[in-house]
Amino acid sequence: MAQKIGAHTVRLHTPPFVAAHAGLAGRKEREGPLGTRFDKTFDNARLGKKTWEEAEQTLLQNALALALKKLPSAAAKPEMIFAGDLQNQCTASSFAFRQSGLPFCGLYGACSTMALTLAMAALAVESGAIRCAAAVTGSHFCTAERQFRKPLEYGGQRTPTAQWTVTGAGAAILAANGTRNDPRITHLHFGTITDLGVTDGANMGAAMAPAAARTVAGLLRDTRTSPRDYDLILTGDLGFVGSELLLELLRREGFDLAGVHNDCGKLIFDREKQDVHAGGSGCGCSASVLCSHIFDEMRRGAFRRVLFAATGALLSATSALQGAAIPGIAHAVVIEGGERMTAQ
Amino acid sequence: MAQKIGAHTVRLHTPPFVAAHAGLAGRKEREGPLGTRFDKTFDNARLGKKTWEEAEQTLLQNALALALKKLPSAAAKPEMIFAGDLQNQCTASSFAFRQSGLPFCGLYGACSTMALTLAMAALAVESGAIRCAAAVTGSHFCTAERQFRKPLEYGGQRTPTAQWTVTGAGAAILAANGTRNDPRITHLHFGTITDLGVTDGANMGAAMAPAAARTVAGLLRDTRTSPRDYDLILTGDLGFVGSELLLELLRREGFDLAGVHNDCGKLIFDREKQDVHAGGSGCGCSASVLCSHIFDEMRRGAFRRVLFAATGALLSATSALQGAAIPGIAHAVVIEGGERMTAQ
Repeated sequence: MAQKIGAHTVRLHTPPFVAAHAGLAGRKEREGPLGTRFDKTFDNARLGKKTWEEAEQTLLQNALALALKKLPSAAAKPEMIFAGDLQNQCTASSFAFRQSGLPFCGLYGACSTMALTLAMAALAVESGAIRCAAAVTGSHFCTAERQFRKPLEYGGQRTPTAQWTVTGAGAAILAANGTRNDPRITHLHFGTITDLGVTDGANMGAAMAPAAARTVAGLLRDTRTSPRDYDLILTGDLGFVGSELLLELLRREGFDLAGVHNDCGKLIFDREKQDVHAGGSGCGCSASVLCSHIFDEMRRGAFRRVLFAATGALLSATSALQGAAIPGIAHAVVIEGGERMTAQ
Repeated sequence: MAQKIGAHTVRLHTPPFVAAHAGLAGRKEREGPLGTRFDKTFDNARLGKKTWEEAEQTLLQNALALALKKLPSAAAKPEMIFAGDLQNQCTASSFAFRQSGLPFCGLYGACSTMALTLAMAALAVESGAIRCAAAVTGSHFCTAERQFRKPLEYGGQRTPTAQWTVTGAGAAILAANGTRNDPRITHLHFGTITDLGVTDGANMGAAMAPAAARTVAGLLRDTRTSPRDYDLILTGDLGFVGSELLLELLRREGFDLAGVHNDCGKLIFDREKQDVHAGGSGCGCSASVLCSHIFDEMRRGAFRRVLFAATGALLSATSALQGAAIPGIAHAVVIEGGERMTAQ
C-alpha cells in the first residue's frame, strides 16, 4: 500500500526492487569522469541510423535491452513501460517501444523524466496492478540542439550558463520481488511546478533550482529527515550554476546540503577539459548516471540511502519565442540499499 | 487494491468516484450536436489572450476550475494533477497549472490523453497514495493546425479523411469517496503501441484504428465481457473513417460492436453541415465529450456501463517530415454507474 506522509510525499509500504538497470552514453560522455561506468557507449552520434531522431530511439531501446539482459532469468519480466523524452510529442520513446508488445505509459517531465518514470512505475507495482515495470528515458545532443536552439551547422556561441545536452539513456526494471542486494524505491515525491520568471533558455539551472529546492525541502520535511540522513542527495541536471543556487535556496530554508549534495550534470562531464560550460543536461543525463554509476555504487554498498531529485525545465521552442518564462519541476524518489530500510 | 486480470487489464477493487467533471469547447463545437451539453463555450479562439497557446492553457484552467466548482464543498480536494496535451513539450498543461501549487504528473498520449490521465489518476487514488486527483486535457484547433500542419493563413485544402482538431478541454476529479450517483472507474487498460505503417497524417483515423481494436478486444477478452455488456463503447477520436475500420477489425476478431459503438469525433460535429470531413480529433475532443455529455448521461442513468477508449496518433511534425509511419495507441477505462458494479 502507498500512503501519503506530510504534505506531498508518498511512502511505499512494500518498496519495489530495482531488479536491473543499465545506463549508456555517447562518445563525449565516455570521455568524461564516468566514462568507464556506463554499460555501453557509442562512438557515432548517429548510431548507424539515418537520422539523429532514430539514433535517440536506438539509445532508449538499447538501455532497456541491456537492463533486461541483466535481469535474472527466473525474474518477472516487465508488464508495462513508463517512458518519455524531450523530442516533440515524445517520439523518441513512442517510436522506440512501438514493437515492444507491452502496454505503454508516456510521461513528460522534461529532464525530470527519470524520476517521474521511476515514481509512476513504482506506484503501479506497489498498487498491485502489475508485478514488474520498466522506467526508461534518454536524450540526444543533436536532436535537442536543433529542436530547442539552433541548427548544429550554425555553430552558435554558448553562454557560460548554458548546459550541454547529454547523449545517453537509462533504464531501470522495478519489480515486486528482488534480491537483498537490489536497491529499493521507498518514497516518492511528485514535484509542483515552480515558475519564478526566469526567461533565459541558456540558464536552465537557474530556472530549475527553485523547483528542486521546493521538492528536496518538501521531501525532507514530510519524511522528517535531515540531509545527513542521506549518503547522497543527487539532483538531476542543475549543473554548476543551478547547484549553487539550490544550496543557497536550501540554506535559507534551514537545510545544509554541503558535503551530501551532488548533481548528475556536474558528475558527467569534466568542466575544465570538456568545454561544457555549466555542465550536462537532458533526460539522458540523470538517467545514464543513475542507472549505471549510482545504482552500481548502491549495490556495492557505497551509498545506502539516496535522495534522487531529477529536475525539468518545462519550456518549448514556441514558449521561448513567445517570451514566456520557464516553469521548472523536480520529481524525487528515495532509494535505499536492501539492508537499510529505516526511513519513516 | 489493483489487480491484473487477463493479459493487460487492471481491475480496481475500490473503484474511484468521478466526483465532479466539466467539459468546455469553442464556437464551432457549440454549433455542433452537443453544443448545449458543454459546461461552457467560448466565442473567440483567443479567449482574450495574446496567443493561441495561451488560449489553450486558459481552456485547461477553465475546465479544472469548473469541475472544482461542482465538487461538493465538504468533498476532498485534488492533491495532484494528471495532465497532458498536444503542444510541443506539453506546454499547454504545464503552463496552465504552474500556479496550482499541486504536485503535477505530465502525461503524453496524444489524443488518448483523457483516458491516460483518468487511468493514472485512478491508479494513484486506488493505491492509497492520494485521496483525490484531477485528470485534465484539452486541445486547440489553431495551435494544433500550425504546429502539425500548415500556418492557418495558408488556407490549405483538406483531404476527405482529415479530421478537425477540437478546441475544447475536459477535467474530471477522481476521489476515493463519493456519492451513489457518481460514475466510478472500475477497470484500466493501458494501450500497446501499434504501428501498421500508415504514413498519411491526414488519415489519422486509419493510423489509430488498429490500436483501438487491440485495446477494445484486449479489454473485452481480459474481463470476459462482450460488447452487449456495455451500454456504450466510446472511442476517442477515430472519426468516421477510423470508426468504420475499427468495427471491421473487431468483426474479424469476433466482436460485433454494431449498435453499441460511438466515437467522440463523430458525436461532436455535424458532418453534413460543419465541413469537418472525417470528424473531430485532438485531446480536447474526447475530453470535452466525456466530461460533459457522457458523464452527465451516466449521472441521469442513460448509460450504466461505458467502455471509454481514447485513441492517440504518436507522430510529430518532425517524424512526419522524415517519412516515418504513425504509431497509434489507445488507453481505456471502464466507467460504471453507481448502482451497477458487476463486472469481473
